[in-house]
Amino acid sequence: MKIVVVGGTGLIGGAVVAALSRAHEVIAVSRRSTPHRVDITDPASIAALYAGLGRVDAVVSAAGAAKFGAFSDLTAEDYALGLDSKLMGQVNLVRLGFPSVADGGSFTLTSGVLGKSPTAGSAAISPVNAGLEGFARAAALELPRGIRINVVSPGWLTETLQAMGRDPAQGTPAADVAQAYVTSVEGTGTGRTIDVPS
Amino acid sequence: MKIVVVGGTGLIGGAVVAALSRAHEVIAVSRRSTPHRVDITDPASIAALYAGLGRVDAVVSAAGAAKFGAFSDLTAEDYALGLDSKLMGQVNLVRLGFPSVADGGSFTLTSGVLGKSPTAGSAAISPVNAGLEGFARAAALELPRGIRINVVSPGWLTETLQAMGRDPAQGTPAADVAQAYVTSVEGTGTGRTIDVPS
Repeated sequence: MKIVVVGGTGLIGGAVVAALSRAHEVIAVSRRSTPHRVDITDPASIAALYAGLGRVDAVVSAAGAAKFGAFSDLTAEDYALGLDSKLMGQVNLVRLGFPSVADGGSFTLTSGVLGKSPTAGSAAISPVNAGLEGFARAAALELPRGIRINVVSPGWLTETLQAMGRDPAQGTPAADVAQAYVTSVEGTGTGRTIDVPS
Repeated sequence: MKIVVVGGTGLIGGAVVAALSRAHEVIAVSRRSTPHRVDITDPASIAALYAGLGRVDAVVSAAGAAKFGAFSDLTAEDYALGLDSKLMGQVNLVRLGFPSVADGGSFTLTSGVLGKSPTAGSAAISPVNAGLEGFARAAALELPRGIRINVVSPGWLTETLQAMGRDPAQGTPAADVAQAYVTSVEGTGTGRTIDVPS
């Protein structure tokens, strides 16, 4: 398969690129450091990406920002970041991209554990992650030509915890999280949220 | 209790006003047809509403628009309507309103069955409803002074089905849905989504 991985230079995206490259032609896309680039907050940039890629079999997104912060400190702009970037950026990858996806192809987006299991500080992230899962459930009912859509919801990564000086044993290695994306791309499920760990 | 019901002239909001008025002082608020008015898409209008109301014990919202339409027809503006109105309008009622809510008071927002159980046509609504439920789960962890927050997720209303010429027996009367709001306001739960029917 020819697979584009948006956010392909990030911690998760890089692991997904590595895992999918074993059996597929993978095109890593990022905002700045790849031959194909995209700013997912800009629909024109997304349209240009698809125009440059031609037909693809699968689109994986591990891209998008959202703001972690105390509820009483979060501003309108903090909420807008998550809605414009992580939520609508990924929705627009599907909305503008499905005509470029081959029959029976797939989209795999990224939410996160805070959607279902919030913590203090996640009031501007939890709605984004939960919203992405709701979008995938709905879009799965209408994508044409057998195109599937799933969301991977990763928990804390071993690598992130390590960088934060916290106990890495509480997390999942990015390479293990990447297997959920492989399952979504190579499997037959649609409208699903794949929690890692499950 | 002194309770403000935003969207208090709508089908659900009107039923909530009627149900809560049996035991409480209820102030119905709408965009145009009530003494206190609010446009929930405008943070300045929300701030002005709270300034005019003074201290309240509970805020109920049955307000906010979102677009139903075929996935392939939905535009950026259609998604923005739901995010700006039904999602962030209600989030901003909490974000800007919690300082006006008494100790131990509550917020009750409105999502809808399409969040968890989408249909064809709900791709711009499902993320809004799921997002609201994610927001309430998260905000419940941080609201100060014992302030609670829940979301009521109504299914199809008997009255709506009747107006559409569909079988009203498949729906729930607005007066029954209103009881879920009474439960949220008078009960002790927080961070919950109350599905009606459950």
